[in-house]
Amino acid sequence: MAVGPGTLPDFFPVAGVRLGIASAGIKKPGRKDVVVFELAPESRVAGIFTRNQFCAAPVTLSRKHLASASPRYLLINTGNANAGTGDQGMADALACCQALATNAGVDVEAVLPYSTGVIGEPLPVAKIVAALPEALANTSEDRWTEAASGIMTTDTRPKGASCQFELDGHTVTISGISKGAGMIRPNMATMLGFIATDARIEPSVLQDLASELGEKSFNRITIDGDTSTNDACMLIASGQYDGPEINADSPALPKLRDALQKIYLELAHAIVRDGEGATKFVTIAVTGARAQQEALDVAYTVAHSPLVKTALFASDPNWGRILAAVGRAGVQGLDLNALEIFLGDVCLVRNGGRAEDYSEERGQSVMDQEEITISIDLKRGDVSETVWTCDFSHDYVTINAEYRT
Amino acid sequence: MAVGPGTLPDFFPVAGVRLGIASAGIKKPGRKDVVVFELAPESRVAGIFTRNQFCAAPVTLSRKHLASASPRYLLINTGNANAGTGDQGMADALACCQALATNAGVDVEAVLPYSTGVIGEPLPVAKIVAALPEALANTSEDRWTEAASGIMTTDTRPKGASCQFELDGHTVTISGISKGAGMIRPNMATMLGFIATDARIEPSVLQDLASELGEKSFNRITIDGDTSTNDACMLIASGQYDGPEINADSPALPKLRDALQKIYLELAHAIVRDGEGATKFVTIAVTGARAQQEALDVAYTVAHSPLVKTALFASDPNWGRILAAVGRAGVQGLDLNALEIFLGDVCLVRNGGRAEDYSEERGQSVMDQEEITISIDLKRGDVSETVWTCDFSHDYVTINAEYRT
Repeated sequence: MAVGPGTLPDFFPVAGVRLGIASAGIKKPGRKDVVVFELAPESRVAGIFTRNQFCAAPVTLSRKHLASASPRYLLINTGNANAGTGDQGMADALACCQALATNAGVDVEAVLPYSTGVIGEPLPVAKIVAALPEALANTSEDRWTEAASGIMTTDTRPKGASCQFELDGHTVTISGISKGAGMIRPNMATMLGFIATDARIEPSVLQDLASELGEKSFNRITIDGDTSTNDACMLIASGQYDGPEINADSPALPKLRDALQKIYLELAHAIVRDGEGATKFVTIAVTGARAQQEALDVAYTVAHSPLVKTALFASDPNWGRILAAVGRAGVQGLDLNALEIFLGDVCLVRNGGRAEDYSEERGQSVMDQEEITISIDLKRGDVSETVWTCDFSHDYVTINAEYRT
Repeated sequence: MAVGPGTLPDFFPVAGVRLGIASAGIKKPGRKDVVVFELAPESRVAGIFTRNQFCAAPVTLSRKHLASASPRYLLINTGNANAGTGDQGMADALACCQALATNAGVDVEAVLPYSTGVIGEPLPVAKIVAALPEALANTSEDRWTEAASGIMTTDTRPKGASCQFELDGHTVTISGISKGAGMIRPNMATMLGFIATDARIEPSVLQDLASELGEKSFNRITIDGDTSTNDACMLIASGQYDGPEINADSPALPKLRDALQKIYLELAHAIVRDGEGATKFVTIAVTGARAQQEALDVAYTVAHSPLVKTALFASDPNWGRILAAVGRAGVQGLDLNALEIFLGDVCLVRNGGRAEDYSEERGQSVMDQEEITISIDLKRGDVSETVWTCDFSHDYVTINAEYRT
């Protein structure tokens, strides 16, 4: 039921970034449920994590290790989120990191853990530890495709993006994978993203990129507003390419940022396209705002409105619902008579009511598409924000209201 | 599909408050779609209105007239919300008020308009005006039952509450009706409440009651968070009872407030029980908060979470979803390990995870009921807030995703 073709790319290998896979039998026997990233020693890593205060042990530990050492490994498991597991969960996450560290001959803080899956069940440490030798033995720069599948839980399809380009005469490669959607499943959790490049990037620039690009992509998607407990999006720069280190003054930085941004957006959008029950990929573009917060308030209020989302499912160009959502977004002194709302390039609302030149036929032709853009111009400033979401369908209810056995 | 029996009471007539009904043929021929409240001259009226900035012409005009004169009539029509109708809508609302004022021999500001129904269509002024003589001719203190039906749009059943009691040896009567739910339908809008008493109440006390009681009842219900454009809840005190005026110092005030509160709550809850597709009536009680805002943030985040609401539909005691909603409510410095969550009287969450003494069987027995209470004790203060909501079912999607013809 996902939106768009969702084909995996042919991944370009990223020098200095090797991936290993194993079956630990965490939830389903035989399933590939452990993925290891092995990074060349001079690699740098930056990331963003969930803001949900109910955050899982691996998130806490990952943050801690990231702050204290140069990461050499990322250890990802599916089938168990190690969330809601208290102190035991922290100890278990550390135990897995320690086992990998011992196997690989590095300090425990050089290992970053990520978990996704069942909430509230103890992490099966022994199974994960037993699978580590296999994962470490088969690390390869060519395992992106398997890794994309290896991090899936309830996704209907793997998600990846990859590109290669010239930066001042030096070839740069970027590959990335993502999984999940920003929500909690009956027992599952998590949105994850892992993007790697062989460029050498100065650490503070790397963190800025991870934060900024993550903010405008992964932090601008919403399925149903339910932020998960385990979300993380990591950016790895292995430094193995043959060019100079890229710092804040490098003329090459804008081009690198653009390339990374495309990858981040593709991976983030892939999550929305695979949203539970999604039949529409919806872009909500707010312009003309006075400040970022009001632009986001408007965008998210529309994106989260159950009445707008069910109208999208119905391909119903229902402007009253969109306007009512804008009206309750809490924007101080908003002049509803000034703003304009477009569906695609069809003006829907102007002067506080339905646009005079609007026709049901034109609105319908936009709403019948799988890809829909709702543009809201607040006409009171020059700040813009865009949020991506999907519709609410019967399948959403079916998937999330199933009885647990 | 509504929750609970929803039987209309035998209404006690309220001295000084007469109701008249007519068929204007606004949307459906023959349907009773105009309701008039006729108030004794010394009546006082106070109310609360939608905070949605996209507010309909009747709301603007009602507020204006309420502020400028002693109300003598309330003019309510269904079938058309007169929302999204710009300046024409204001003129039309005024024209209807003027017609009634002329018919009844009062000033136009003594008439308060209320509309509910289709958004974006011009108000059929001529039809409403033509129906006014009929409505005015049949006003009676005994028409509450018909009025309850007369204000319905997409409600599956009429909603009313009524009581009579002694206040310092004087009999006081309260009757009230409500309709709708705090949301926008494909074309419909509005939550309305009209409560009348024969008590004589000092004006500022009346406004305080209207605001406070409305705040803790009508402003604490949510179906899907979609605040309508036409919401209003009016409190009428006709002053016809045989006791003294009740002011801020009256020893009788607490008892009157309690009685009014019960009526307000019953009418507000009736809206949730009739929420689209509702199968569960859910009370979310937050205690132990430091301040009102955080208590409300937590309550509403849980109440609006699609994942919590679909779990409720499934009768699934899914604590992970509730905790994840609490965790993203934005409460500064919240200690998730301190809080407790109960389903009914069954402790679900303690110390950041599932309570040790919890069993699926006990949780399931609570969730299988139609009436469910989720209690969240934040353990960081002494402020409490309660919000009422319902579940998200397939019928919600069906009702709101229907193609408009």
